[in-house]
Amino acid sequence: MNKLQSMRRYQIGPVYRRDQPAMTRGRYREFYQCDFDIAGESEPMLADSECVLILTEVLSGLGFSNYTVRVNHRLLLDGIFQCCGVSEALFRPICSAVDKLDKCSWDEVAKEMSDKGLADEPIERIRQLVLTPRGSADLVDQLRENPALKGNAMVTQALDDMSRLFRYLGLLGCPDQVRFDLSLARGLDYYTGLIYEAVLEPTPDCNVTVGSVAGGGRYDKLVGMFTKKDIPCVGLSIGVERLFTILEQMHKAKEQKIRTTATQVYVCSAQKNLLEERLRLCGQLWRAGLPAAHSLRSNPKLLTQFQYCEDTGVPIALIIGESELRDNKVKLRCIASRKERLVDRDSCVDEVRAELASLAAAQQKTEQ
Amino acid sequence: MNKLQSMRRYQIGPVYRRDQPAMTRGRYREFYQCDFDIAGESEPMLADSECVLILTEVLSGLGFSNYTVRVNHRLLLDGIFQCCGVSEALFRPICSAVDKLDKCSWDEVAKEMSDKGLADEPIERIRQLVLTPRGSADLVDQLRENPALKGNAMVTQALDDMSRLFRYLGLLGCPDQVRFDLSLARGLDYYTGLIYEAVLEPTPDCNVTVGSVAGGGRYDKLVGMFTKKDIPCVGLSIGVERLFTILEQMHKAKEQKIRTTATQVYVCSAQKNLLEERLRLCGQLWRAGLPAAHSLRSNPKLLTQFQYCEDTGVPIALIIGESELRDNKVKLRCIASRKERLVDRDSCVDEVRAELASLAAAQQKTEQ
Repeated sequence: MNKLQSMRRYQIGPVYRRDQPAMTRGRYREFYQCDFDIAGESEPMLADSECVLILTEVLSGLGFSNYTVRVNHRLLLDGIFQCCGVSEALFRPICSAVDKLDKCSWDEVAKEMSDKGLADEPIERIRQLVLTPRGSADLVDQLRENPALKGNAMVTQALDDMSRLFRYLGLLGCPDQVRFDLSLARGLDYYTGLIYEAVLEPTPDCNVTVGSVAGGGRYDKLVGMFTKKDIPCVGLSIGVERLFTILEQMHKAKEQKIRTTATQVYVCSAQKNLLEERLRLCGQLWRAGLPAAHSLRSNPKLLTQFQYCEDTGVPIALIIGESELRDNKVKLRCIASRKERLVDRDSCVDEVRAELASLAAAQQKTEQ
Repeated sequence: MNKLQSMRRYQIGPVYRRDQPAMTRGRYREFYQCDFDIAGESEPMLADSECVLILTEVLSGLGFSNYTVRVNHRLLLDGIFQCCGVSEALFRPICSAVDKLDKCSWDEVAKEMSDKGLADEPIERIRQLVLTPRGSADLVDQLRENPALKGNAMVTQALDDMSRLFRYLGLLGCPDQVRFDLSLARGLDYYTGLIYEAVLEPTPDCNVTVGSVAGGGRYDKLVGMFTKKDIPCVGLSIGVERLFTILEQMHKAKEQKIRTTATQVYVCSAQKNLLEERLRLCGQLWRAGLPAAHSLRSNPKLLTQFQYCEDTGVPIALIIGESELRDNKVKLRCIASRKERLVDRDSCVDEVRAELASLAAAQQKTEQ
């Protein structure tokens, strides 16, 4: 083992899960996931708040606005179970029953608790505490005053954490889409503190019920299980394949295309025998770091080249023809507006940059 | 199979090779590789030149200057073998013997050819043609005039390709580190046209003999072997683990650190009890898209925070203290120069951006 005591990293790649996934619903044992984790000592809830913020940033960044991040705390659930008279040995099995509340009715969950050996009275007490309450910082205060929970050490510590979480999220300017939800339990046993899950709500663009698309929490004991040395950790996993499938549906509903290239400038030739001039211009753009491309044909038609830009969403075309070459100019065409203007060959990199910036600014204005 | 006829993509990830790698030299069956490929119809050598250019861009971009890209053409080798009297059935076995010229002496390679059934005379003729010639466009002309090769159709086509390659590379502004080398053969059987390989030369910073770090070529028949429909392809693979190991050695030799974070601004507190103010400032920077970080401790010492920046190469610190808070200011510190100045809280994002731009410009000036 290395001596690393702290780390913060993301990774995107294939992961494996040893279970029986619902393959008919497109879930497999191997799938792509994006993970972000912070390992190492942190003041209470600092790293945790950052993870929740990052979760909202990722979803907003991908263009989703219709999401809720549900948050809860494992110690709070354990404290509630304790207050309801559940024995410690049943904490995890009962927690796993609560985890099914987003898919099953209360009666089904209650039956599972009963099958796991819990008496009717504690089940009813759990129902009263867990089933309905949703809120944010207000729910923390409400629970603090709940006589059924008062004085329980786990509950007190968890509520202190939740109170810090909402204060920190406010300071960080986190979007107000975080909901404290006592019925959130998360399936995995290794969580030890804050847990969270992002849920997409159906919208006119995407009315399929998609449910959970990301989740995570604090797992302070997992590293120690393998290394004999506890390293506190908190992290999140994002189901990228699921999100991309939904994004595709949303774009389809809006009749928008998803761009599959990063090309910003397409170098076009207006007449035949200009392949070598295209190469020269591409080289100039590439050296300047601009994502440029051109046709791999020697004499493509100008309209075919414009069509390529429209089909693939390339915003700018730079056109060379014999007259442009003679005058040391190049024609800059904005594909969307079809407006063209002649620019000096020597300053064409700057002109493209300026055009891209003004297109981006216009785009941002439309979205607001 | 999908209906994709053309594609250009890169990927970085684990790949597998079913062979017996030299594990003692750190080579394994699974390793990380960066691949770039262009599939689909292209005018002769257009996509090929782009691949060679990209190879030089990747190596230069990673900070290497001491590399050579060796290029050759499979048809040229086949044509040479044909002119030397090698039967077609022996083209690939003899090619695989030539491939060992970078590791073995000519005598060893000649012995392998002889073991594979080639007579002494063709072996000697191959030696005369393949062993020494290295050059660029000049070598193409020289080979065109070689009486031993004249009139061979494969040689003629290959030399036309090589001539185009050097012309296109010149137009693209490719660095002059591409060498036509007739002894380059590449191990894999599936190449059908241009082949290339990047070799790092020992330097004062890195005097280990590292040899090949990347390679590739045209493989027009490989896709068809699996799909019954040929799709012309050209691509390259970069041994990222190998390159990173060498980069580490180079940095070590220069006593430079390799940065392991992308953080550009570190938010520091000058006194105690300013954790919440740090969060507020981090939120502001993050919303602006700046890679910012801060300590996960509630009351870190100011010197410890500066030390962190120095150790990890974060260029700018933003410091909040009680007086800054009162005046709605923040102190901007350039870590390298230790120069500090007060900036308005509301414009601190712009100030950080300007400082980063001026640091980058200064850096670029030093490197030139």
